[in-house]
Amino acid sequence: MATDSVPTTEQEQPTKLEAAPGEYVETKFATLFEPPQPLKTDGGATIGPVTVAYETYGTLSPEKDNAIFVCHALTGDAHAAGRHGPECEKPGWWDDFIGPGKGLDTNEYFVISANVLGGCQGTTGPGSISPTTGKPFCLEFPVITVGDIVSVHAALVEHLGIEKLLSVIGGSLGGMQVLEWAARFPDKLSSAVVLASAANLSAQGIAFNTVGRRAIMTDPHFKDGRHYKAFGEDEPGPRFGLALARMLAHITYLSEASIELKFGRRLQHSEELGYELQRETEFQIESYLHYQGKRFVERFDANSYLFLTKAMDYFHLADSYGSLTEAVGRTDASFLVVSYSTDWLFPTSQSKELVAALIETGRDVSFIELDSPYGHDSFLIELEPLTALIQPFLAQTRTQRNTDTSNSR
Amino acid sequence: MATDSVPTTEQEQPTKLEAAPGEYVETKFATLFEPPQPLKTDGGATIGPVTVAYETYGTLSPEKDNAIFVCHALTGDAHAAGRHGPECEKPGWWDDFIGPGKGLDTNEYFVISANVLGGCQGTTGPGSISPTTGKPFCLEFPVITVGDIVSVHAALVEHLGIEKLLSVIGGSLGGMQVLEWAARFPDKLSSAVVLASAANLSAQGIAFNTVGRRAIMTDPHFKDGRHYKAFGEDEPGPRFGLALARMLAHITYLSEASIELKFGRRLQHSEELGYELQRETEFQIESYLHYQGKRFVERFDANSYLFLTKAMDYFHLADSYGSLTEAVGRTDASFLVVSYSTDWLFPTSQSKELVAALIETGRDVSFIELDSPYGHDSFLIELEPLTALIQPFLAQTRTQRNTDTSNSR
Repeated sequence: MATDSVPTTEQEQPTKLEAAPGEYVETKFATLFEPPQPLKTDGGATIGPVTVAYETYGTLSPEKDNAIFVCHALTGDAHAAGRHGPECEKPGWWDDFIGPGKGLDTNEYFVISANVLGGCQGTTGPGSISPTTGKPFCLEFPVITVGDIVSVHAALVEHLGIEKLLSVIGGSLGGMQVLEWAARFPDKLSSAVVLASAANLSAQGIAFNTVGRRAIMTDPHFKDGRHYKAFGEDEPGPRFGLALARMLAHITYLSEASIELKFGRRLQHSEELGYELQRETEFQIESYLHYQGKRFVERFDANSYLFLTKAMDYFHLADSYGSLTEAVGRTDASFLVVSYSTDWLFPTSQSKELVAALIETGRDVSFIELDSPYGHDSFLIELEPLTALIQPFLAQTRTQRNTDTSNSR
Repeated sequence: MATDSVPTTEQEQPTKLEAAPGEYVETKFATLFEPPQPLKTDGGATIGPVTVAYETYGTLSPEKDNAIFVCHALTGDAHAAGRHGPECEKPGWWDDFIGPGKGLDTNEYFVISANVLGGCQGTTGPGSISPTTGKPFCLEFPVITVGDIVSVHAALVEHLGIEKLLSVIGGSLGGMQVLEWAARFPDKLSSAVVLASAANLSAQGIAFNTVGRRAIMTDPHFKDGRHYKAFGEDEPGPRFGLALARMLAHITYLSEASIELKFGRRLQHSEELGYELQRETEFQIESYLHYQGKRFVERFDANSYLFLTKAMDYFHLADSYGSLTEAVGRTDASFLVVSYSTDWLFPTSQSKELVAALIETGRDVSFIELDSPYGHDSFLIELEPLTALIQPFLAQTRTQRNTDTSNSR
């Protein structure tokens, strides 16, 4: 059993690194960056210890050469696949893509998924207790970067005893993390899969994030980010602001075509226009967005939303490493880059820029724009074509890696 | 002088229907739909009297055959050209397009511009005093349609003694009004100029409007729309919500290319990233959007924003008149339809649908997609190519009209 090879400092014992098909998965926690070795952030702050929530699926090979790290998007979490138990049947957010025989085939690979630094789903974030004050960090949490997120995950991978990942994969903010992995830890991965992402957020993307943050920060329940019970706040926090931010962001995740397809101008409650201003959910798309906003507030922390969108705005691979070619030239990992035809938040043109830089540096890169009506969300929805692409890509990575290993013996 | 031909019920006397080059212009007011003949809205409400704020530029010909009606967009007003006086030098919103020798040449044409019903710039709207209660209408104002807006403007044109307009022109929501003019008052115009518009708002457009309205209505200072001094409210009204709505809408008016061109990722105050969350205007685009939101709140009423975006959502020419071809087939006016290459709020594809319907019904239609980096705002910015198009189009309309008149003698 692979368990042997895993460090035994997990908070939940015993650590179990495999999951048979149909078996329940559990979220585990690792504590890293314990003082006196805290994480030094790109912004110059120090933070530690850092707790990381993560899950694993499949079995780590004795050679530890079959590990794939999954990077989640803005509001994702460690629960990427499987179900937690009979009382909690909610499948992971990429359950159709991770599992036996699926895109990331857990019969073959050991898949790791971890919540990001700054998040609110188990990994240390602004809602976590500051060891200095004994109260939640709130806005005292350091402004973090995608690089900081990846540093924490790299420490987790090391902590799991894995020297080099077979692949790192992610979409959107997850794809940014993949690119950062390749530039910051160039020897720690054999391949990189970047989905619906880019080497930087567009200025338009920053603009949308600005409005979302503004919605949160102007909500009177925001209270400078101290909207937690620990501060005697029984109130719901900036739920209107957070819901607004989500509604707005949600529009950018869909394509005009997908909205048209799914809702068009159909009305929610009636066949006829109501001529009422206060019936705010007259059109189905209105109702849908309101519902999305409402549901999001139940599961996400407004402060995490601020910090993670800021990390997204800050991400700029070329600025961080001199140029795009210098950044991607640091690794000899092979790349698979996928964009989606109707994604206007991370348009194909941005993927092409990245691919051009990869080609220029002589990297092994495959690129495809997949036709999909689902806009930016396609990487979460259109899993059949992605599965067809990823399986041979991973197999090839493994073959290549074995060849390289044999050659270097 | 044309003054003779104008009804004398204006609130401000004497009415002056011409403006020499360089002369100041003034906003005039007409009171229409006086009881017992109030306006019956499409939603089944009645409202009257209705005050209309309007301006005119140029001189009405003795034959009254040179009048052009300008329809403003969502947050425009009657002040489309010229300046109000030495203390108020702010040029009208389309001043580069309306004036002697300009696109709408006031040496040739008599141009009328009026604020829309439901607005907050002089024409009756939710902030106006209800004759029933003696207090502002607030949300008791009826939900109005683009058709209602146009009905009020048609009454103004009649009131000005003009039987048939040479042309009706407008962009965005203004373009919707142009289409409604053609369908609702088919004999009242010789030509129609539709810029950056469509026969209906896309579902994505409805989605953005929904979020904007939600931002206003969840602002605690909204107070069910009773945020006026008349109700003892000294507070600023839902200014955060209204600013958010504007910031968001403003992104949709720009193109990714124009944001990139104008701001890119440039920082506002520094050369270096600040790693501060609360410096909300770190990037120039953030600063710009915040400024736009702030400035907008000073000049616009939140309730008007609710009613006018709702009118925009409701607009659907095909539903109102059976089909698109039936709608545009009602008039024999000639059409000029202009779209802009980077406009994603009213994309060229929507203009093409409209043009196809016009062609199908045998209308005289010219269509062009102008190359412009400025997105939806192009119709307010790219005035040189528009001027080059509009001048011969109007000249031809006039020739055609004279020919028709001679033939019918």
